Amino acid sequence: MSTKHTMIIDTDPGVDDALALMLAAYSPEIELLGLTTIFGNVSVEQATKNAGFLVSLMPKSVPVAQGAATPLVNDLHPYPDFVHGKNGFGDIAVAYPADFKPDPRSAAQFIVDQINARPGEVTLVPVGPLTNIALALHLDPSIKTKVKQVVIMGGAVYRGGNVSPAAEANIWNDVHAAQVVFAADWPIVMVGLDVTHQTVMPEARMNAACANSPKVGAFLAKICEFYANFYRNTAGFDGFCVHDPATVVQVLRPDLFGTQRGQIEVVTEGLALGKTLFGPAGFMYAEPGWGKRTNVEVCTTVDSEGVLKFIEDVIKTAP
Amino acid sequence: MSTKHTMIIDTDPGVDDALALMLAAYSPEIELLGLTTIFGNVSVEQATKNAGFLVSLMPKSVPVAQGAATPLVNDLHPYPDFVHGKNGFGDIAVAYPADFKPDPRSAAQFIVDQINARPGEVTLVPVGPLTNIALALHLDPSIKTKVKQVVIMGGAVYRGGNVSPAAEANIWNDVHAAQVVFAADWPIVMVGLDVTHQTVMPEARMNAACANSPKVGAFLAKICEFYANFYRNTAGFDGFCVHDPATVVQVLRPDLFGTQRGQIEVVTEGLALGKTLFGPAGFMYAEPGWGKRTNVEVCTTVDSEGVLKFIEDVIKTAP
Repeated sequence: MSTKHTMIIDTDPGVDDALALMLAAYSPEIELLGLTTIFGNVSVEQATKNAGFLVSLMPKSVPVAQGAATPLVNDLHPYPDFVHGKNGFGDIAVAYPADFKPDPRSAAQFIVDQINARPGEVTLVPVGPLTNIALALHLDPSIKTKVKQVVIMGGAVYRGGNVSPAAEANIWNDVHAAQVVFAADWPIVMVGLDVTHQTVMPEARMNAACANSPKVGAFLAKICEFYANFYRNTAGFDGFCVHDPATVVQVLRPDLFGTQRGQIEVVTEGLALGKTLFGPAGFMYAEPGWGKRTNVEVCTTVDSEGVLKFIEDVIKTAP
Repeated sequence: MSTKHTMIIDTDPGVDDALALMLAAYSPEIELLGLTTIFGNVSVEQATKNAGFLVSLMPKSVPVAQGAATPLVNDLHPYPDFVHGKNGFGDIAVAYPADFKPDPRSAAQFIVDQINARPGEVTLVPVGPLTNIALALHLDPSIKTKVKQVVIMGGAVYRGGNVSPAAEANIWNDVHAAQVVFAADWPIVMVGLDVTHQTVMPEARMNAACANSPKVGAFLAKICEFYANFYRNTAGFDGFCVHDPATVVQVLRPDLFGTQRGQIEVVTEGLALGKTLFGPAGFMYAEPGWGKRTNVEVCTTVDSEGVLKFIEDVIKTAP
């Protein structure tokens, strides 16, 4: 087994996705096997196109396999263009590479193939809706025993949501897929709003980290401007939450996060749609139905400054 | 208008109910108009009997009006005798007064009559399931404009529940009544697990406060022993949460609590049954259905030491 973290990122780029992907590509401890794309921040077609561009910024090319265009069961929600721009990159002009071709396989098939090729080695990092991951589990349930870990950006346990008081966007975008993924008996780490909403990169600090990176940094600084404007206009603060990047950091530096073990149940209907309910391990409740599922690790505390510094340090090394 | 807090407590005694009622009875700033009873910790019949006993410990007798025996819509849950004992008083022997007679009116009628008799003056303090309060609203919707405030022990916004990861017991015990009460356009303060789960009275400290009160204190110390054993055995800590007493304290010392304004929606089905979802005022969500309701005040922070000291100081003055 390699000492590196062999990783697939399932992504809907997306501004913070772009930052997460650059972080993974320029972290020497990560061997990126490829990207799989998913609807969410943008359509899956746009996500694939954006992933292709991001690969062109990487030190080494990796395959991009396109995934689901819609949720497993429910209707697609409108894409949040007020957060990531219509093109997912804050509506800046992007020089998409003309020669980019996605992998012929579906995202689910790509995930299954990679995990089967390297049993016990692959860290799967979904930072969008969980549709592809649920489809991969349907395609080959044996990946449950062969994956190293599944580190998910999504959900909110103790904090409120961002698309409703109950729900975080990735989970809300495919509540049934999320329920399938959290119900499966495999090693999950959940990195949700409990930690990402308190890990805010100030805009000036991001710009400073990007200043010495004329290609990657310059691109990130430009797209983060749109994203930071969204936070300024809606939440009134300076900077942006590093949702997806924090998830990559969790793989590399789990010591920066405090976790609790327990069962996650996803609310699949009603006003709490997309809520990730957390039942701490070992606690017995009066309401039946709890305490029967596999426990997962939920990040509940974070050394935010440690995460921000880690991101800065990697971005500074990019070309 | 009196400078006193004219109060009705709707209660299902219950160990912490007993402490809340003694706190109200021996606080000179409170004029207690009466008690209304509700199923919850025990049956409504037992709650009424227990309320009758608690009135016998008060400096001045007040009426007790019996309320609902079951929730508005759903089935009754089993009474939590492992928390409060089968008799609601930790299964100690209680000398119930032979001459006690409840008020002939229903709890809902009593509430409506009292509020109409003193428009703008009555603070309604429900510390059990909200069935009687919903029934009072049905009986006379005009009480919405005549009540001074409704200070509710119930719910959990940022913290997990106590009967499920989603729900606090009082709300869970009648989710539809809770939805009616939170949907009404009247001034609500919610004192939930966000503040009461961090306000824990150590057993020795409670015993010390009770030591100089041979009648009231001696009774409270005895029933709190059972209650503290429940917390020790299930949560592993020394002492007990002062759920209901904290709610009475909130009326007298609102400065000890930090609040947030927003909309509360109660989940009325599914695994999140009884969850009090909180949508902060002014925040716009992608999920429709939010932002249309009256805002309430939700206690989210507390000076726990201040609350404990307040309770101690009052109990020490009791006979």
